[in-house]
Amino acid sequence: MSERIGIIGVGQTSFHRIRLAKSLREMCFDAYSEALDDSNLAPEDIDGLIVCYTEEYDKQRGPWSPIAEYLGLTPKPVVGVSNYCASSTMGVRVGWAMIKSGLHDVVAVIGYQKMTELSGAEVQEKMIRGGDLMWETPFGIGMPHVYACFANRHMHEFGTTEEQLAMVRVKNSEYGSLNEKAAFREKVTVEKVMKSPVIAWPLKLLDCTANADGASCVILAKEEIAKKVSDTPIWIKGIGSSSETNSMGARESFVTTGSWRAAEQAYKMAGVSPKDIDVAEVHDCFTIAEIMAYEDLGFCKKGEGGKFIEEGESYIGGKIPVNVDGGLLCKGHPVGATGGSQIRTITLQLRGEGYKIHPKCEVEGAEIGLVHNVGGTGHVSNVIILGR
Amino acid sequence: MSERIGIIGVGQTSFHRIRLAKSLREMCFDAYSEALDDSNLAPEDIDGLIVCYTEEYDKQRGPWSPIAEYLGLTPKPVVGVSNYCASSTMGVRVGWAMIKSGLHDVVAVIGYQKMTELSGAEVQEKMIRGGDLMWETPFGIGMPHVYACFANRHMHEFGTTEEQLAMVRVKNSEYGSLNEKAAFREKVTVEKVMKSPVIAWPLKLLDCTANADGASCVILAKEEIAKKVSDTPIWIKGIGSSSETNSMGARESFVTTGSWRAAEQAYKMAGVSPKDIDVAEVHDCFTIAEIMAYEDLGFCKKGEGGKFIEEGESYIGGKIPVNVDGGLLCKGHPVGATGGSQIRTITLQLRGEGYKIHPKCEVEGAEIGLVHNVGGTGHVSNVIILGR
Repeated sequence: MSERIGIIGVGQTSFHRIRLAKSLREMCFDAYSEALDDSNLAPEDIDGLIVCYTEEYDKQRGPWSPIAEYLGLTPKPVVGVSNYCASSTMGVRVGWAMIKSGLHDVVAVIGYQKMTELSGAEVQEKMIRGGDLMWETPFGIGMPHVYACFANRHMHEFGTTEEQLAMVRVKNSEYGSLNEKAAFREKVTVEKVMKSPVIAWPLKLLDCTANADGASCVILAKEEIAKKVSDTPIWIKGIGSSSETNSMGARESFVTTGSWRAAEQAYKMAGVSPKDIDVAEVHDCFTIAEIMAYEDLGFCKKGEGGKFIEEGESYIGGKIPVNVDGGLLCKGHPVGATGGSQIRTITLQLRGEGYKIHPKCEVEGAEIGLVHNVGGTGHVSNVIILGR
Repeated sequence: MSERIGIIGVGQTSFHRIRLAKSLREMCFDAYSEALDDSNLAPEDIDGLIVCYTEEYDKQRGPWSPIAEYLGLTPKPVVGVSNYCASSTMGVRVGWAMIKSGLHDVVAVIGYQKMTELSGAEVQEKMIRGGDLMWETPFGIGMPHVYACFANRHMHEFGTTEEQLAMVRVKNSEYGSLNEKAAFREKVTVEKVMKSPVIAWPLKLLDCTANADGASCVILAKEEIAKKVSDTPIWIKGIGSSSETNSMGARESFVTTGSWRAAEQAYKMAGVSPKDIDVAEVHDCFTIAEIMAYEDLGFCKKGEGGKFIEEGESYIGGKIPVNVDGGLLCKGHPVGATGGSQIRTITLQLRGEGYKIHPKCEVEGAEIGLVHNVGGTGHVSNVIILGR
């Protein structure tokens, strides 16, 4: 059971707010073919497909089936994995287990979402039906509202400021403005974030990510194959996963998404601690989410996330560079594709190919990286630790 | 890697056509608590949850989240698995891999569907959007139409008769009439099936299964735990999975769902052949599907499925008793729950507890059993071989 599972191919479409011309099959094909090229494998070497998405954004039901056909992977096994915004890291977890168990040798994990064919109101209607349908959805409680509660509580308990929230967007926009695959490339100031329209106080428009279209692909292989086809396989060293209650009213704390549990598992499995992390992608669906992630991942103590960004610790050159590809805030957030995009960034960084995002985004000499992907408001959290 | 994975608990609600009084959480709780009681485990021993379903039948999106909370399994890892009508056997495949890989020790796999809150037209509209959305769905091609094509082709190539199709329903109704958890308990004759209204020629109403509400649960454990808590763990000996094209127009053959590929994998992994199977549950969404399954699983040669049922070979006392709990035709078909129900039946049979379905449904001395679960019209096929 000591055999390692390697990432040997990564691909990602640009994330877009307007992408009506590409069907979901074509988006997935673009990400898949980029990853396949990156892997040095032939299509016939892929022996299983995992398609990760959140349901109801497409007219197509069971999208794993047409995608498998379009990629030419029929009659190989294919499964659909659904875990809100954490779908594609959960897909990687499932793929890891399928290879480790001996069921497969090489698995492609595709994450996608196509959200812009729907109106904003339709997306919101679907999104809030992921919450507690009996006690919360009827009152219109959506993602920004819950994250606003997190932010309020964090400000109340720890003195976190609106400016500190804004600083997360400022940092991410500095890197995101350089990332050609990002949907939102404007470099912004604290003042600009503060002056953007309030969505749910204290969160303003620029404290929030936005829906997008896009696809990502991660190709996993067992150690023997990974070593054969790649000079720079990136190994999955730790995987942690945890859940939180669906009902927000049942949560124990409003200053965490609960992802510290997933982090604990991942660190233990990888045999590393937060100080060993050289670069991280965290789930910044809202600026407060990134601040809570610093804390839940142990990059700083609980309550000190605001200080962590204010002191520049999550910039390149700081303690742990975080979201130096723009994060969800600037890349956009095509739900099912997001985790795969995070894994792509960390894989490139650990290969010494961070320059492929942009030379100014590269974290030189990074050896251990972390991916933190949250579904909903913590309904699921996945933490994956990668290493050279 | 030689450690086995055992089934130590099974549970299933009754399958119903009218079940408005139970929420999806409650249905799942009923199946889960029955399986948990059956397993001799305490709730805290369950360390992971897999929820299997087909999307869009519920208002609730991401149902894995409220279900995990309702079952008291938060903060344990939870994943949603979607594979049309084969969702819960795919969930068992994922659970098998998660335990085998060392990620989990004990996993609960819950399958459910709640379809009767929607009108028949709404269900049909959703169902056909699982087909090829560009080239087939717009023409209204649904499940009965494709299976009618299969039946026509089978009759054309092999001389299979309408009466032979009807005989499948007759057999399944003989056993289904005894199964208290079945939705359709009327014992029927060939004449009655033949005189039921034509749905899509040659399939009549009684050649078809119907939508239903229901939930099932299978609890899997690693060998050490399975042996400790159960005197009769049932081992997963083989798992096969394959896919077929989404577009029916791209299929190579119309006398198979393609599940022979999954069967080959499962037999090879288990080290057994069709003649070793003592009892089987096959995916009889339509009568023709059971006849094709006999052939694809190697119970008889391709083209001889009609003769197989006509000669009584799939009755108890015949070569291989098939669907002696009523099958999908009589139990009803709550999509995500179906595979788990099939696994429950085979598990009980192999434990010598077939009498729990009904004393007349028991296959005495059965040692090796097979589950065959098809998603869509072969878009995915899973075959699982179980043994004492």
